[in-house]
Amino acid sequence: MAERGSARGPGAVPIVGMVGAGQLARMTCQAAVSLGIGFRVLAGAADESAAQVCAGTFLGDYRFAGDLRAFAAGCDVLTFDHEHVPAAALRELEEAGITVRPGSAALRHAQDKRVMRERLAALGVPCPPFAPVSSLGEVTAFAAEHGWPVVLKAVTGGYDGKGVWICAGPAAAADVLSHGIELIVEEHVALERELAVVVARSPSGQGAVYPVVETVQRDGICREVLAPAPGLAPGSAAAAQRLGLRLAAELGVVGVLAVELFQTAAGLLVNELAMRPHNSGHWTIEGARTSQFEQHLRAVLDLPLGAPALAAPHAVMVNVLGGEDPDIYPRLLHVLAGDPGVRVHLYGKPVRPGRKVGHVTVLGAGISALRDRARRAASYLSSGTEHG
Amino acid sequence: MAERGSARGPGAVPIVGMVGAGQLARMTCQAAVSLGIGFRVLAGAADESAAQVCAGTFLGDYRFAGDLRAFAAGCDVLTFDHEHVPAAALRELEEAGITVRPGSAALRHAQDKRVMRERLAALGVPCPPFAPVSSLGEVTAFAAEHGWPVVLKAVTGGYDGKGVWICAGPAAAADVLSHGIELIVEEHVALERELAVVVARSPSGQGAVYPVVETVQRDGICREVLAPAPGLAPGSAAAAQRLGLRLAAELGVVGVLAVELFQTAAGLLVNELAMRPHNSGHWTIEGARTSQFEQHLRAVLDLPLGAPALAAPHAVMVNVLGGEDPDIYPRLLHVLAGDPGVRVHLYGKPVRPGRKVGHVTVLGAGISALRDRARRAASYLSSGTEHG
Repeated sequence: MAERGSARGPGAVPIVGMVGAGQLARMTCQAAVSLGIGFRVLAGAADESAAQVCAGTFLGDYRFAGDLRAFAAGCDVLTFDHEHVPAAALRELEEAGITVRPGSAALRHAQDKRVMRERLAALGVPCPPFAPVSSLGEVTAFAAEHGWPVVLKAVTGGYDGKGVWICAGPAAAADVLSHGIELIVEEHVALERELAVVVARSPSGQGAVYPVVETVQRDGICREVLAPAPGLAPGSAAAAQRLGLRLAAELGVVGVLAVELFQTAAGLLVNELAMRPHNSGHWTIEGARTSQFEQHLRAVLDLPLGAPALAAPHAVMVNVLGGEDPDIYPRLLHVLAGDPGVRVHLYGKPVRPGRKVGHVTVLGAGISALRDRARRAASYLSSGTEHG
Repeated sequence: MAERGSARGPGAVPIVGMVGAGQLARMTCQAAVSLGIGFRVLAGAADESAAQVCAGTFLGDYRFAGDLRAFAAGCDVLTFDHEHVPAAALRELEEAGITVRPGSAALRHAQDKRVMRERLAALGVPCPPFAPVSSLGEVTAFAAEHGWPVVLKAVTGGYDGKGVWICAGPAAAADVLSHGIELIVEEHVALERELAVVVARSPSGQGAVYPVVETVQRDGICREVLAPAPGLAPGSAAAAQRLGLRLAAELGVVGVLAVELFQTAAGLLVNELAMRPHNSGHWTIEGARTSQFEQHLRAVLDLPLGAPALAAPHAVMVNVLGGEDPDIYPRLLHVLAGDPGVRVHLYGKPVRPGRKVGHVTVLGAGISALRDRARRAASYLSSGTEHG
């Protein structure tokens, strides 16, 4: 614990500070209430999703070490709802004795896709073939070996499909290269479906792993999560869980680690890593004994981790994307009336078309019926129609 | 909706203001996050349980109509985490056009035990025999008919066993009478056990009822809740649920109504009413599809009510009472390590011996094992030993 921690009096509780005030911080704030700990967010503006609900909102800019230091001064441990804090600023905080979890050495694997790919390759973890590229010649040489289309990815700063381009041929690749950003190229893998596994790891080395889920993406955005992944062979599920726990340990992660996976004919490949609560784990709020948000807090506080077991046979989560009409609340009435069992989570964000503004979760048995219910609720919240 | 509501622009959400900032407001605040609505509390001090976590804390005194009016000006609907707002102040708010839910006409049945008893008697609802008393002669006359001991109850202001005296004979009764407060006397009923049923009712008249639970009291304080009540005959459970729904409708309750019941050889008797989320419903946070806190919010907003169905075969809730050592957090580590499946809720309140400072819930099958686990966790949090 940092300076503040050691100065605590009897009866005091630790304070977790989360950098960023999006929906992940909002749901982490909600989880912190039960644990009785202190919780603060560093928000860019008072109307951000988590700042609307968090009593401990601190306004500042996460890109500036001075703001981060001022925020950290009131906290025992610093953690994150996104990967965008500059690595140099993180190291500066650590050198100043601030407890940063996950630490900068782990977090860079979620911040820099080239570092991540090279590290995973060194560990022998199956990934799509990749190469760093800075010229069209390098891309076409890679494509000559692996075929078109190829996937170009920005090494830093991407999320929700931003920073990822599927290029059918040299013209498209040249267009991406013209932006002048650091890139890697990857094979456009023939995949059967996408999976994800969420694990948590504490500084003591304790690990906990959730059931492997299937994720359904559209336009690079996660739309649906099915928990546990339907029809996944038990051996494959166990292998994915072992991989998640191994990566958390090898990379020195503290907190939640989400591993996005491609299921292919040749086995599982790692697509992306995130070191924070993740969209593929939102179903755990009601669907698991311990939510990923509480689990993240427990991990960064080095509290014992909670049971990740399913609380129902199946859970389906569907994201609510913004539609044309920004006024969700009147539609909420109809969704709640139409399905009293659906769990709705709204993030308080201004509605813009395609933006994640909430999610719904349905629990029970029979994945197909659950999926229908969750899709109907999410679609109606988005657009007022049953097919969004 | 009040003035504020009708002036809302597109995309705006209603704001619920809860008078009082104890643990009930704290857990209601937590539930409000998911619904994406606005939520504010009227707190007496910034360090009260709900004020610690609620972004919308307003400081003021709930006994003063001026403070209540100022608080209500920023809210669409006013509701309560306790029954102590003076009836005259409530009526004044209603006359000023403020939406108060439950309304003062309903709430007086939870504020005034004599009014409640007389109304229930008029409705033909079974209650313990009672009489208003102001002299020892009236008490001894009542005891001549119903036997000693008798129960004296303060007509207003009691909670958690405060304001209730079991008097073995005239000397004890005389002592209570000497306080000069308004009293009723009740028969000291020979009861088999205590039960409770929590219902919710919306302004539209929609009702929802949770499974009937067994409550275990000690020294007038609720210690344990077993959901559903073990071994309760289905006919008795259904009768209790019908009674709860009927009372909510007859009394015009909006929000959550908790009905505390005595199970006796002669059938069920109504003990107390509360018109707010209630200790006997804390298990619903994880144990039911919709928690009583979200249900209360839905009801006061006239949103459709959520499914009250069990989310597990059984749930056991045990309250955490303060012990001698105020420092709960170090003990939390051991409790979480000892039982990764226990759900802990700490209220952030200063620890005083015997004070409710949190609760734990355990879900699953096999009520006896669940009860052992919940008791062990709560006892250890209280005192550091397994038997509190």
